[in-house]
Amino acid sequence: MIAPLAVALGDPAGVGAEVTAKAYAEAEARALPCFFAVGSRRALTTAWKGPVVSIETPSDAPRVFDDALPLIEVEHDEEIRFGEPSLEGARCALDSLEFATGLVKSGAAGALVTAPISKSQLHAIGFDHPGQTEFVAERCGVATSNIAMMLAGPELRCVPVTMHVGIARVPELLTADLVAARIRATARGLVRNFGITHPRIAVSGLNPHAGENQLMGDEEVRIIAPALEQLTGEPYDISGPWPADTLFHPRARAKYDAVVCMYHDQALIPVKTLHFDEGVNLTLGLPIVRTSPDHGTAFDIAGTGAARPDAMAAAIALADHCAQQRKLYDRDAE
Amino acid sequence: MIAPLAVALGDPAGVGAEVTAKAYAEAEARALPCFFAVGSRRALTTAWKGPVVSIETPSDAPRVFDDALPLIEVEHDEEIRFGEPSLEGARCALDSLEFATGLVKSGAAGALVTAPISKSQLHAIGFDHPGQTEFVAERCGVATSNIAMMLAGPELRCVPVTMHVGIARVPELLTADLVAARIRATARGLVRNFGITHPRIAVSGLNPHAGENQLMGDEEVRIIAPALEQLTGEPYDISGPWPADTLFHPRARAKYDAVVCMYHDQALIPVKTLHFDEGVNLTLGLPIVRTSPDHGTAFDIAGTGAARPDAMAAAIALADHCAQQRKLYDRDAE
Repeated sequence: MIAPLAVALGDPAGVGAEVTAKAYAEAEARALPCFFAVGSRRALTTAWKGPVVSIETPSDAPRVFDDALPLIEVEHDEEIRFGEPSLEGARCALDSLEFATGLVKSGAAGALVTAPISKSQLHAIGFDHPGQTEFVAERCGVATSNIAMMLAGPELRCVPVTMHVGIARVPELLTADLVAARIRATARGLVRNFGITHPRIAVSGLNPHAGENQLMGDEEVRIIAPALEQLTGEPYDISGPWPADTLFHPRARAKYDAVVCMYHDQALIPVKTLHFDEGVNLTLGLPIVRTSPDHGTAFDIAGTGAARPDAMAAAIALADHCAQQRKLYDRDAE
Repeated sequence: MIAPLAVALGDPAGVGAEVTAKAYAEAEARALPCFFAVGSRRALTTAWKGPVVSIETPSDAPRVFDDALPLIEVEHDEEIRFGEPSLEGARCALDSLEFATGLVKSGAAGALVTAPISKSQLHAIGFDHPGQTEFVAERCGVATSNIAMMLAGPELRCVPVTMHVGIARVPELLTADLVAARIRATARGLVRNFGITHPRIAVSGLNPHAGENQLMGDEEVRIIAPALEQLTGEPYDISGPWPADTLFHPRARAKYDAVVCMYHDQALIPVKTLHFDEGVNLTLGLPIVRTSPDHGTAFDIAGTGAARPDAMAAAIALADHCAQQRKLYDRDAE
């Protein structure tokens, strides 16, 4: 058995509380495991009229879960104005994230699921990490160069080497070491979180047609191929660099377990084209399982009831799946 | 009625003859219009054991089409070795392209469909255009800056602003004038070739999240937004720049008729993810209709019988559809 999952509700002015509550309301239909929310009671009860029961510790969650959404309350005393983020709300989001992370690290909760936060509000209260991922990594004592972000849907998993940088900066940021580190994190993540004992990883090129013999860019021969050479002898099936445009159709997808892509849109375009409502962000390389729905705070629709819980439900389901796989893996490794 | 369509068979050592013959063999099931091949008889009869009847002019094709694939022969006297391109074969491919283009320009053929050629072989015989598209544009007297390449499948049409260049060069090649020219070519192409009287065009950003307020690149405000401003007042519904990753899922696709993308993979990844076997390349901005299947010579499988005719059949069907729409449009414009 996995301990109950912790869902940090994110920014109280965003859709985090709403999608978490809606996922709870459909927990049986979606076969979701037991989880509890960590965050603002006001946000949750304003966004949702269903039953919420405050609990003190994760171990209280299973007793409550059949009848109400269990909540570990985080102080938040201002009136909820959906779509209007505030510094008070950012503090609540950060406290929720920190508390939930601690519960998972201690083993009291089985995995961490994080609803979206507002980066600009968090930065305004002095938060100096690029995002929640880096904060969680630091709390877990892991260098950010060793983690990787996997975007996962039912039919496709992609890991971008570079992430939130402009296209003009991508070529200068790519190094053979970084590409190799991402491939390695991806391979280990597939073993540990998905139970794939011999992962098959396809690596994309950077340029059209993967450069076509250096006719259109040389990063494939200068950076990517050397990265693959670094990994020779490791117990993974790694291939590439492949032209990115022919890498994501159904017959191609049958040949790998994940793709390591060179930049944000190269990874996100295929995942969101195929899995817009159910894309999940899984952080690889952490000692804990952490997922998040692949959408933002959606301040524009927060409070209107229009937010879909599909991605949050998928994030909870994937966190549970990965936590179970890890338990099997760790047991076998003993 | 549209005149018979001309299919230039491309490189005799590639899959062009095979996919054309296979498309012919399934013409009735696929409801394809009357067409004829232009190219090497040896390549065609080596790739396919079905009936081929040589004709002198396109007007002979309808009489033949029910019983045999009509062929306008282009001289090609060497033995066929699939997968092994030759200079003689490149000459045949170029002669076929030139002859077929002339037939369409004169009105004797209704539209031009081109099977893939080998660029390196063509360059070796002195061909100095980047590809067939630029050759056809020159023969039609159109500047290449005024043409655009549309990748089209049943559910998605994309036009890249830049094409066969490395990612590192994309930012420097983008200008507001070029983006505006591609949008305009796309809009006019949708009106003329697809009968869409008031086209809706979504324009992608270059960077992740379309730059997110210049946090990740400034090309959106410096280049793309000014391009959209240039087009204010033109009778098209143009919007953007949009984040590319959220632009291609089914609900997003319902909101536009085509997307203008900033670079090759941004356009090709979604089209080929959704429509790998049936993607068609349509050249916009020409006085004639020209399509091609969105695949290469496939020298690795040429001659094995493994090539799928889906994309060639789709290219023939789309060429016919566009030629019919143009006829209606030109009649209405009179």
